[in-house]
Amino acid sequence: MPPVGAALWRSLRAHQVYGANTDVGKTIVSTVLCNAIQRNQAAPRLPSSSPHLQRYANGILTECLYQFDEPVSPHIAARQKSLTIPRDDEILTAVRQTLSDWAGTGINFALVETAGGVHSPGPNGNSQADLYRPLRLPIVLVADSRLGGISSSISAYESLRLRGYDVHSVLLFRDDYYQNHEYLRTYFQKKSIPLVPLPSPPARPQSHEPDAVARDEEAMAAYYDRVARGTDVTGLLEELTAKNTARIERLEAMPGRAHETIWYPFTQHHGMAPTDITAIDSAYDDFFQTYRPAASPEGGLRATFDGSASWWTQGLGHGNPDLALSAAYAAGRYGHVMFPGNIHEPALSLAETLLESVGNPRLQKVFYTDNGSTGMEVAVKMGLRAACHRYGWDASQEQISILGLKGSYHGDTMGVMDCSEPSTYNKKVEWYRGRGYWFDFPQVRLSQGTWRIAMPVDMEALGPDLQFASLSAVFDLEARVQSEAGQRYKEYIRATLETLVQQHGMKFGALIMEPVILGAGGMLFCDPLFQRCLTEVVRGHPELFDEDAPRASSTPAGQPSWSGLPVIFDEVFTGLYRLGRRTAASFLGVDADVAVNAKLLTGGLVPLCTTLASAEIFEAFSSPEKSDALLHGHSYTAHAVGCQVAVDSLRTMMQMERDGSWDASRRDWQSSSSSDGDSPEAWSTWSHGLVHDLSYGEGVEGVFAMGTVLSISLKDTQGGGYTSTAAQGLQQALAAGGREFAVHSRVLGNVLYLMASITAQAEALRAIEGLLRAALLDGAVSIPGATD
Amino acid sequence: MPPVGAALWRSLRAHQVYGANTDVGKTIVSTVLCNAIQRNQAAPRLPSSSPHLQRYANGILTECLYQFDEPVSPHIAARQKSLTIPRDDEILTAVRQTLSDWAGTGINFALVETAGGVHSPGPNGNSQADLYRPLRLPIVLVADSRLGGISSSISAYESLRLRGYDVHSVLLFRDDYYQNHEYLRTYFQKKSIPLVPLPSPPARPQSHEPDAVARDEEAMAAYYDRVARGTDVTGLLEELTAKNTARIERLEAMPGRAHETIWYPFTQHHGMAPTDITAIDSAYDDFFQTYRPAASPEGGLRATFDGSASWWTQGLGHGNPDLALSAAYAAGRYGHVMFPGNIHEPALSLAETLLESVGNPRLQKVFYTDNGSTGMEVAVKMGLRAACHRYGWDASQEQISILGLKGSYHGDTMGVMDCSEPSTYNKKVEWYRGRGYWFDFPQVRLSQGTWRIAMPVDMEALGPDLQFASLSAVFDLEARVQSEAGQRYKEYIRATLETLVQQHGMKFGALIMEPVILGAGGMLFCDPLFQRCLTEVVRGHPELFDEDAPRASSTPAGQPSWSGLPVIFDEVFTGLYRLGRRTAASFLGVDADVAVNAKLLTGGLVPLCTTLASAEIFEAFSSPEKSDALLHGHSYTAHAVGCQVAVDSLRTMMQMERDGSWDASRRDWQSSSSSDGDSPEAWSTWSHGLVHDLSYGEGVEGVFAMGTVLSISLKDTQGGGYTSTAAQGLQQALAAGGREFAVHSRVLGNVLYLMASITAQAEALRAIEGLLRAALLDGAVSIPGATD
Repeated sequence: MPPVGAALWRSLRAHQVYGANTDVGKTIVSTVLCNAIQRNQAAPRLPSSSPHLQRYANGILTECLYQFDEPVSPHIAARQKSLTIPRDDEILTAVRQTLSDWAGTGINFALVETAGGVHSPGPNGNSQADLYRPLRLPIVLVADSRLGGISSSISAYESLRLRGYDVHSVLLFRDDYYQNHEYLRTYFQKKSIPLVPLPSPPARPQSHEPDAVARDEEAMAAYYDRVARGTDVTGLLEELTAKNTARIERLEAMPGRAHETIWYPFTQHHGMAPTDITAIDSAYDDFFQTYRPAASPEGGLRATFDGSASWWTQGLGHGNPDLALSAAYAAGRYGHVMFPGNIHEPALSLAETLLESVGNPRLQKVFYTDNGSTGMEVAVKMGLRAACHRYGWDASQEQISILGLKGSYHGDTMGVMDCSEPSTYNKKVEWYRGRGYWFDFPQVRLSQGTWRIAMPVDMEALGPDLQFASLSAVFDLEARVQSEAGQRYKEYIRATLETLVQQHGMKFGALIMEPVILGAGGMLFCDPLFQRCLTEVVRGHPELFDEDAPRASSTPAGQPSWSGLPVIFDEVFTGLYRLGRRTAASFLGVDADVAVNAKLLTGGLVPLCTTLASAEIFEAFSSPEKSDALLHGHSYTAHAVGCQVAVDSLRTMMQMERDGSWDASRRDWQSSSSSDGDSPEAWSTWSHGLVHDLSYGEGVEGVFAMGTVLSISLKDTQGGGYTSTAAQGLQQALAAGGREFAVHSRVLGNVLYLMASITAQAEALRAIEGLLRAALLDGAVSIPGATD
Repeated sequence: MPPVGAALWRSLRAHQVYGANTDVGKTIVSTVLCNAIQRNQAAPRLPSSSPHLQRYANGILTECLYQFDEPVSPHIAARQKSLTIPRDDEILTAVRQTLSDWAGTGINFALVETAGGVHSPGPNGNSQADLYRPLRLPIVLVADSRLGGISSSISAYESLRLRGYDVHSVLLFRDDYYQNHEYLRTYFQKKSIPLVPLPSPPARPQSHEPDAVARDEEAMAAYYDRVARGTDVTGLLEELTAKNTARIERLEAMPGRAHETIWYPFTQHHGMAPTDITAIDSAYDDFFQTYRPAASPEGGLRATFDGSASWWTQGLGHGNPDLALSAAYAAGRYGHVMFPGNIHEPALSLAETLLESVGNPRLQKVFYTDNGSTGMEVAVKMGLRAACHRYGWDASQEQISILGLKGSYHGDTMGVMDCSEPSTYNKKVEWYRGRGYWFDFPQVRLSQGTWRIAMPVDMEALGPDLQFASLSAVFDLEARVQSEAGQRYKEYIRATLETLVQQHGMKFGALIMEPVILGAGGMLFCDPLFQRCLTEVVRGHPELFDEDAPRASSTPAGQPSWSGLPVIFDEVFTGLYRLGRRTAASFLGVDADVAVNAKLLTGGLVPLCTTLASAEIFEAFSSPEKSDALLHGHSYTAHAVGCQVAVDSLRTMMQMERDGSWDASRRDWQSSSSSDGDSPEAWSTWSHGLVHDLSYGEGVEGVFAMGTVLSISLKDTQGGGYTSTAAQGLQQALAAGGREFAVHSRVLGNVLYLMASITAQAEALRAIEGLLRAALLDGAVSIPGATD
């Protein structure tokens, strides 16, 4: 389904007419509005789409895009006719195109009428409120004046709101017996939505009466004439115009106002101008609707691919109505309830679902926090306590360090900043004091069609660079760990640790790693064998850390005991299907003692983080003293909204896995690998052919893709790193985009990465691949949509 | 409105019957279910409430609590009759009581039928879905089989869900033309909700036909007989029974399962048992619905006052449908969208609303994070940078400390832990290194009817203890700052700082305070004059911190420049009406350079935090180097759901202020103070009489109340502090509660505090006050509800 820009024009005031139910008078209301527009302006060219409207509102352009004869739900009508049913995206595109054409010819008012109620199914069975959502037209809601109409009108309103629609006005027929208009006027007034009651239309003559048709036409004409003269409708039209104008003016003003008031995260504001800020009107699936300068003839809003998956958070698409309803349910059932000493269903379900799904028997306990940084603070506290407890160290008297990899990143709170080596991110933070040792490591990349593992400079001990025929072969760790390379890795790690502890007197409290890919450090794809060997050495040589250290054993409950150091995996970025599997740890064949998840956890909706820990780590905090407990907690710990959304997201993602939703991608990558035996399957939603071709690009240093992540390292004569500008040209080409949409991307130094949601449409990804080919492969392939 | 326990019994399966619209056959469906129950069980005693049902389902007990003759919406009918209209809470109590009585007499199936659709107004004009929400009965939804019925059924379902209801089954009449049952079956199947289509009931004979009534009765009887024999209905009843049982069993199992999987925040798990954990089924207004042991004759769920306002977060009540819809709207419109470089309406609106509402002209920029701890990390980074920038200090080479008060608490991430002096909270955290100096300070308390300010021991320089006639007099700072006490405070502070800097060589980077009340430190009410003087000395004597420091001046833009040290106010707990005013800073008459808000910011729904800063602090990070920027950011920074909910919460709270919602409390406290002139008004929603009386309590050391906070310090022969157990007896008395509800409270050492939402009902607060009087004033006053 190709994305469309949302429908917004300065000159054309376009609205969608939804009914609170069927037969509430949508068409009559539309005709009233069009008639009133005609009376109130010089150039009466008013489009809408209905024969009724065409008859009574002269000079109005109508366009009926699709029609069924039988007054049943369109999804039934579509079934009964042996017609070709238009696809939902075709309907959407046709509506968008018609409005766009009208806007281009100076038409200034349009109504898109729907059929039945807000959730009446379209021809393909999807609710109309969902089907039309990408356009996000402002709504004219026709309420129900009959008995029961208060309820159906408010429910219809709520269904529209939870899909992110703005209702700009409510109209209904006045009924002095039921008086729904009085109740609803008060109700909508509180929401600043004007409600206009209209006189009831004349009763239809019985069809067997003489001249029934003529009399009906006459009565209706008189009715429309009378209503159009009413000041209420005129006032309403003025209000609709004012709202359309205000919406556009606000979008235009937002970058300037944001520039005045917002202190952006991770942003140097020096030299920043309002034009560097993009106003996002709404978002749907993988696309933002971004505002572009008023001058554009194509309308104010453009679909823009969310190429960073909104800082790596998106899973099930923006504006997902199922998640919106999950969030609303938890908010309606609980709000937020105090967590310590209490338990509620979403928090318990999530804990149980997570422990079950990660497939790591060590992990038994779930600690909740709000984001990856706080979840890692908790993990570090856990690891340090467990180590000091076992080894009898007094951490108030000596420095306990962590062991990690260069280029690690675990968040921006100061405790976890100290877990990374000095870098651009942290070195100017006044209280930063890196506390640890960080190994440099071999990196994986596809280059010139070959998967290469490049050893870091000055680390000859690791041996020569390696080459592999496929990505899956890189992950064939059961074989590789026995190889010469594996032995060299282990020996190097062991010897280094020995030096650090024995010669430099360092004490280590935890091994912390982002398995497979170090994200914020620059999308560094670590040789999984190195991470595997590092864990094995740490666990296999506890004597390195404390001469009296016990050998690895089992806990009384029969679980494996941690050995050497507690192993903490930061899966905030890499976990929960980001790399195509539930855990990134499973690629390494390592069970961590502590694992942290966030980002995708809530499917991309609200902040939430879980730190999973082994029972043994948990026990290190157990004592009769309250002060020995893990005295950490945030006010909204395990907030019901986040937990409920996470439960529903996890279940949806696991269902997708069971349903084989990514089988096509799996096959695409499988066919390219030759003989990988039992190694973990590695694949990407980005096509293997693209990745292969890009690896030959002249300006490309290397490339890789896993799961929904695509990373392109560009050659940088200045030396690369976070301050490199090599990727900016590519970023600009993507931002210009193709005919259908633009691409928003983030760069990390000389690395441009793209990331999609778990549910991304293959067509959209292929279109983006076209842009990448055009930009990176010397114009050998044209940009789809941009040139034809 | 007295709270009621939600409706749940093991023996009595009680459901509420809602219709997707009026006239969808709720009564016929109810009769079908009751008939089927009768056929399928030995003891056919089945209650429901309708004459129709009474006629066709023999042996069924029905109870019609209220009835109107005219088939209009109850709110109209109520108006037309000159009857006494039952209040909503009376209706709720009557329904609850009837069900409870039935449960007590062994009845095992009950249906509570509603009128019209889900949002049809009750007699007092409130939507029935809102009115009955506290009972949170599982729903039997009667869907609409007519044209348009798919839409109205789904919308009705969504309206119920966003109020936290569980829909246990859907029934509707089969209509083979419209086939709504087919579509809806698939729809509800995805949500694991069984849908049963029923045969259409026989058409009613025209009333003028002979024997119309008799023929109708006969046809209906045959209809019911036929349907009751259908296996679908029998199967459905079994499913309803299973769901009721499963719900109770889950509630019973939850504490045990939580005990296995959850690592609770701020909790020593040693010796903790499942019985120490409370299952919360749902929450509404200020009340949890907590599960109590199966043995209780009164039903499984009990209303329990949320006495800590869920860790100080609650503002607008649990299960608030307006906030639920706000959250859903933002989720539906955006999900979460990438923040840096972008702007969306909720984030901009919130920033603008906050800057406008805090009334501090220094604050110009808004930085978003996820919770108070991360927001304070950002504030500390801001303060340190500004100071090092101005004073030319190299923080990587020397320790820059913060200046604060003893007993401060700013969160659990390690950076802000270092901002507090060593205490129970932090001293066992391995990486904790307190970096600062913390003043002890005079504390305010009401004791024996007098407001007393007690000087800390060993601080004779501050002069003798002080006494005041009223709370407002304590806040008369414009007068007090000129007094002898004020001069003594200032001189003591100046001298101390001089010693710290000149003799101990300390360098300070920021002054950090929680204005008025230090929350987690033990509800320490600091003499506001001391905080005022501390700020004035820091700002008035910049030379104390650096000999070349500039005097206070204005920025180029004309705002006051920070002087001495950046002043950071942590208003996470005390801000946004917690103490009755928008800011706690306004009680001190001090404009901070950085201010942090969270907790109440979102009205008590989801985590969100704002750090507001002056333009001058912002400029300290501005340079052509990206690495000089504030490189801090969380994935869900400025998430749309949180920002939207915060905008709506703030607006609601400010509207309440304009509407004089707390005028009664203001008057209650005003009458007690004598001549306070222009001093800031200090008042509480807890009654002045209670606070005054408790201050004479034998076991009470002191007491105070401000805004929605009530704090009671109990005498502790063991010396007080976080590990004190003095307050446990009072806590247990509250947990036992009265007849109507229990009270959940948290203690901080020997301090028991209670906190309500901003919208708490006066009746509930008065009832709790009764419990407090009974427990603390020697039984002089009886516990309301418990003894009569």
